[in-house]
Amino acid sequence: MRFDVMTLFPEMIESACSFSILKRAAENGIVNVNTINPRDFTLDKHKKVDDTPYGGGAGMVLMAQPYVDAYESIERCENSITVMLSPQGRPLDDKLVNELAGYEQIVMMCGHYEGFDERIREIIKPLEISIGDFVLTGGELPALCVIDAVSRKIEGTLGKIESADEDSFSNGLIEYPHYTKPREYRGLKVPEVLLNGNHKEIAKFRLEQSIERTRQKRPDLYEKYINS
Amino acid sequence: MRFDVMTLFPEMIESACSFSILKRAAENGIVNVNTINPRDFTLDKHKKVDDTPYGGGAGMVLMAQPYVDAYESIERCENSITVMLSPQGRPLDDKLVNELAGYEQIVMMCGHYEGFDERIREIIKPLEISIGDFVLTGGELPALCVIDAVSRKIEGTLGKIESADEDSFSNGLIEYPHYTKPREYRGLKVPEVLLNGNHKEIAKFRLEQSIERTRQKRPDLYEKYINS
Repeated sequence: MRFDVMTLFPEMIESACSFSILKRAAENGIVNVNTINPRDFTLDKHKKVDDTPYGGGAGMVLMAQPYVDAYESIERCENSITVMLSPQGRPLDDKLVNELAGYEQIVMMCGHYEGFDERIREIIKPLEISIGDFVLTGGELPALCVIDAVSRKIEGTLGKIESADEDSFSNGLIEYPHYTKPREYRGLKVPEVLLNGNHKEIAKFRLEQSIERTRQKRPDLYEKYINS
Repeated sequence: MRFDVMTLFPEMIESACSFSILKRAAENGIVNVNTINPRDFTLDKHKKVDDTPYGGGAGMVLMAQPYVDAYESIERCENSITVMLSPQGRPLDDKLVNELAGYEQIVMMCGHYEGFDERIREIIKPLEISIGDFVLTGGELPALCVIDAVSRKIEGTLGKIESADEDSFSNGLIEYPHYTKPREYRGLKVPEVLLNGNHKEIAKFRLEQSIERTRQKRPDLYEKYINS
């Protein structure tokens, strides 16, 4: 999987990808993260990439020319999708992550400050994706979330020690509680059923816990689960 | 605002906070981001912070002792809240961001790999927050989203040039389209109304565009808006 991230802050993407599982996936050649800085494509002699909005108002607007030219410089393979990180996009969820994992290349467009000149959307026609109904300074953190979530779905990213199958949402429920050593900590004990080695009973306990938690914490997911 | 981030990857938090608006907010003393590594608190001679789950299964589980001891080492002021980043939490949205911005200190608990020993939740009783129904390798990216979104709400973080008032969601709608120079780009023109200097008409155009986009792209938000 190749990620091409268009950003004015390439170091932010690069440094965040140098930790933990993403670092390993890059070293193993499973995931390849590139950055493209629209500032390198501006025709403005002061290297300007944004300007004040027509019609007035606070904030700066990313200009079309450097962004579109940067986009067109990216070599796209056949099985490629272009994504714009934007609060007005389709909410990212496990289903969309699985869809994205089916591509060979994801080009990601990060805004910064106030927003994109509308003509960037009109020309590139990206799939707009939002990670939630809150506002961030730029698309870099959402892009990193996409990279992380999608990479986890690609064979070879997670070692044998990790697993995506038992994660939250993989069965439409949130996860059951986990326990590790010691058996007792500050008076709190590990549930007996997890210690008796009866795999059927353990699976039953975990499923019950997942269902009950989902019912309490996420009634919306619970409704979907019992009606599916 | 003080953020205390508990993480096994403190450099990931620190490097992401060294860009753009967060960098400036830190330099101005408006926002202060600290990291606490539970690995520094483990009593295990191999500095272990996780172990296999009771009852079997893939993945490692963060042990209670290093995490709880690290938490208790943090000096908490009166107006403080403790947040755990977790897919089973309350979804982060603009309303929750505003609530969080009312605290003086936010302690954030990032997990990594498979999850927390359940007793960490039972002892610390954090507010669990999720940034969406997808799975990430750790809580670091969600914690950074919280830091970014909350910091934007604190007076002094955004310069005069930026603005939080006109952002998406501040009025329950997604944003209207932005345009900047040039007036025409690849045959696409800036809407005439934005060029005529009539502020009433501009405001009307923008509100109409916001409403129409919300209706098309986010019918859930549109329903709330027309019924409010």
